[in-house]
Amino acid sequence: MADDNRVYLFDSTLRDGAQTQGVDFSVNDKLAIAQALDRLGVDYVEGGWPGANPTDDAFFGAPPAFNRARFVAFGMTRRPGRSAANDPGLNALLNAKTPAVCMVGKSWDFHVDVALGISRSENIDMIRESVAHAGKSVDEVMFDAEHFFDGYKANPQYALDCALAAYQAGARWIVLCDTNGGTLPHEVERIVGEVTAKIPGARLGIHCHNDTENAVANSLAAVRAGVRQIQGTLNGLGERCGNANLVSLIPSLMLKSNFKVGLTEQDLKQLTHVSRLLDERLNRAPNRSAAYVGESAFAHKGGLHVSAVEKDPRTYEHIEPELVGNRRHIVVSDQSGRANILARFREVGLDVEADDGKVAALVETVKLREYEGYAYDGAEASFELLARRALGSVPGYFRLARFRVMDERRWNVRGELVTESEATVTIELKGEQLMTVATGNGPVNALDTALRKALLPHYPELGDMRLVDFKVRILTPQAGTEAITRVMIESADNAGERWSTVGVSPNIIDASYEALNDAITWKLLKSGAKSAE
Amino acid sequence: MADDNRVYLFDSTLRDGAQTQGVDFSVNDKLAIAQALDRLGVDYVEGGWPGANPTDDAFFGAPPAFNRARFVAFGMTRRPGRSAANDPGLNALLNAKTPAVCMVGKSWDFHVDVALGISRSENIDMIRESVAHAGKSVDEVMFDAEHFFDGYKANPQYALDCALAAYQAGARWIVLCDTNGGTLPHEVERIVGEVTAKIPGARLGIHCHNDTENAVANSLAAVRAGVRQIQGTLNGLGERCGNANLVSLIPSLMLKSNFKVGLTEQDLKQLTHVSRLLDERLNRAPNRSAAYVGESAFAHKGGLHVSAVEKDPRTYEHIEPELVGNRRHIVVSDQSGRANILARFREVGLDVEADDGKVAALVETVKLREYEGYAYDGAEASFELLARRALGSVPGYFRLARFRVMDERRWNVRGELVTESEATVTIELKGEQLMTVATGNGPVNALDTALRKALLPHYPELGDMRLVDFKVRILTPQAGTEAITRVMIESADNAGERWSTVGVSPNIIDASYEALNDAITWKLLKSGAKSAE
Repeated sequence: MADDNRVYLFDSTLRDGAQTQGVDFSVNDKLAIAQALDRLGVDYVEGGWPGANPTDDAFFGAPPAFNRARFVAFGMTRRPGRSAANDPGLNALLNAKTPAVCMVGKSWDFHVDVALGISRSENIDMIRESVAHAGKSVDEVMFDAEHFFDGYKANPQYALDCALAAYQAGARWIVLCDTNGGTLPHEVERIVGEVTAKIPGARLGIHCHNDTENAVANSLAAVRAGVRQIQGTLNGLGERCGNANLVSLIPSLMLKSNFKVGLTEQDLKQLTHVSRLLDERLNRAPNRSAAYVGESAFAHKGGLHVSAVEKDPRTYEHIEPELVGNRRHIVVSDQSGRANILARFREVGLDVEADDGKVAALVETVKLREYEGYAYDGAEASFELLARRALGSVPGYFRLARFRVMDERRWNVRGELVTESEATVTIELKGEQLMTVATGNGPVNALDTALRKALLPHYPELGDMRLVDFKVRILTPQAGTEAITRVMIESADNAGERWSTVGVSPNIIDASYEALNDAITWKLLKSGAKSAE
Repeated sequence: MADDNRVYLFDSTLRDGAQTQGVDFSVNDKLAIAQALDRLGVDYVEGGWPGANPTDDAFFGAPPAFNRARFVAFGMTRRPGRSAANDPGLNALLNAKTPAVCMVGKSWDFHVDVALGISRSENIDMIRESVAHAGKSVDEVMFDAEHFFDGYKANPQYALDCALAAYQAGARWIVLCDTNGGTLPHEVERIVGEVTAKIPGARLGIHCHNDTENAVANSLAAVRAGVRQIQGTLNGLGERCGNANLVSLIPSLMLKSNFKVGLTEQDLKQLTHVSRLLDERLNRAPNRSAAYVGESAFAHKGGLHVSAVEKDPRTYEHIEPELVGNRRHIVVSDQSGRANILARFREVGLDVEADDGKVAALVETVKLREYEGYAYDGAEASFELLARRALGSVPGYFRLARFRVMDERRWNVRGELVTESEATVTIELKGEQLMTVATGNGPVNALDTALRKALLPHYPELGDMRLVDFKVRILTPQAGTEAITRVMIESADNAGERWSTVGVSPNIIDASYEALNDAITWKLLKSGAKSAE
């Protein structure tokens, strides 16, 4: 290896993370997350399990174009009693034609006996033949040794024999999996150390689950003991208690160890954004107390802490929040967001001088809106519009005078129970009042349709725009307080452009209209449409 | 010490946990949590900071009666330039008259220089004199060495001198605090080992924060290196990223180590309950993926995993869930087969024979509905209703005849732009037609309010039910196909019960109504309400 301290990051958010209860990625979700991971600088992105379900088939059918990462398909070693060349699962895996594959096989004798019910030597044949067969057509074959630690504790020689079979058959990485997540850090360190000594030359990886809340520590212990690949997920997504959280591991490795990963210092600043992007895609509230990237990770509540932090942030902060793209939250005089927000401006192509008078006001506006419930992490188009409006560069395309939406569930003339939504919209455009009416699949769809019916004759640019996702979250569901609704809308056009917008209001229809309005305005701005005013 | 392997548990939920953003305990909350901690079997319960705020003053004024735990008051060493006997903070601490006190003081030279701005020897005098003074009236004095690890890395001798001053002044425990939470497990193990060697005879404790997601691992590493007291909180509550999570540490110590704590096997079975009790008190949704106690901690989604778990749970479970009072959960998802669904029936208390004719039909129904877009994975209440309906055991409580919802955005008489939602509902109940109207924050909220207005006089059981979360997802956003909307609703009642329901329809209002209807029906079923028909 060129550099003994280089640790490779393998992201399994789209495969093992997809096993999380309540998580159901669409193909578009997978694409957006894969691209964010590539930009972040992880080394391997595992996309899913070809042949296992229609979503993964569609995703591998049109794989993302990566600049930095290698795309990995997941599968199993061949079934018992088949040749590797004739195994349908293995064929589906290899037909995905990814530069790397990760194949899982058993390494715990108990599992071979009970779950598979085959002989132990047959299991070793399955591993050896599958790895060798895959190696004929795939550049990089990895072997996930399932239940390696439980297996090693029960029967060290058999677990080693399984790993050795994969290594000798040409696997480029042998990944030691703590599948049940029950192994403690000192055990991981000892066992990895022994494997390192017994299979010298093998490149080892680690795959941990968080069932004792030690997945991050177990991964770090394994690296100290000799592994050089970490498998994990964004935000620790994964079945049961989740997988090792790459979002926590990356900064600990980069800022607190001598190990190196593929991210630059600049990449690391995207970390908070990427973490929240995943939550937005999953329509979940980000974990406020997440290490490094949580909203509260650098929040100071106690008065004594605040005054010490104002003297010197190192008094109560283990790192500078900006290093991971996060920011300090202090009730009084929060100045830390400024650099971050300026960086976000540059990201959307707005070159603003730091000393421009408008910047200070805009920073305040962003903070106020985030306090009110807006989330710009998953709504770049709304963020860009907010910034451009503050700089005076968004034309007035139209003005809404009023709308009315009606949803009715009733028996129709054929005796069927139907629900209909109908919207009436009045807008002002070029000094005229335009009134349109339309039906839809629900109030927001009806409103969207009526609005565009009014606009389309004046702005034919809107013809190929469509709403592709709509997410709602209630932000303060405690009894006794008024709930605020946040709506996120994703739009797309025929040129393949996708953009996300956000609206916040006590009324969900209001919030939806705000997000819709931003979506349409952004499209008009990007198409270079002329103002109507 | 009687037993070298006995580890003492010190709970700081009511003190350091109270620093969490958004957490605000009442005196009754503190009482309920303290009593639960005493029943659980922790050794020390830190109740708060006497003199710091009215809640803590009231709580210490009428302290809980404990059977097993020792009650601890928290405070600071004396201020610079005062005598210990004349320090108001120290007096407030001692006036609480608890059997034990925990006093915090500085041990990092940088903090003494920058945050306090006093001489280093003055800081050591403050520690020694405060501990000695407290020892005159309190049975057990503990010293929290704030920032010990950062201090030790910067100036090991000074950090040791601070700890030594407390020890020599009579502190029964010297607690090494990783206040900023930035220390990694291997560093904790090394530093604790050195302190153990350099202050032989001292009883050491550890106090970790989770800023690198290693608080649990750091605590375990410290115990291995010689500490015998762990300070932590329930569910890892605490400022920024939280404190070490006792709920994860307790079972790891009891089930996976040779160390002993004060809990019996029977006590351990309360763990899941105590963890959720805290969340109920805080009105937060429990973390589904929490180690040991999370709803998903023993959930199995993949079909291969489920069939292995049914053969022998040890195949994919690191401990028996019953040991910590949790339970196995077979998740219904598109990856599940017949075995999965049958297992799930048993779990909701439906004893169905595998060869019952209704089962085959029900399995088909579940698959068809999942194909249509239903997700039962996060909507257990809807799944249970689906199964019970198929078996004919759900009474008809009411029937919806029709509804109409209107959302209007207009200028009101005060010249403000407002959006109003108003719903009209007609239901049939006991042969009567009931018609109600209500307004709300949006169409679904208005519909919910109108529906319950009609039902409440007949079903007072619904009085304490409320909607706590509402999620919307568009399922087939590909061009050319009709989009399907899936709505998931989470409801709660005052008994702390939470249940989730799902609705699917091309119309979002329809889908919302379906989920609402299931939520209400489930509540009526569980309350044993009588059918109206």
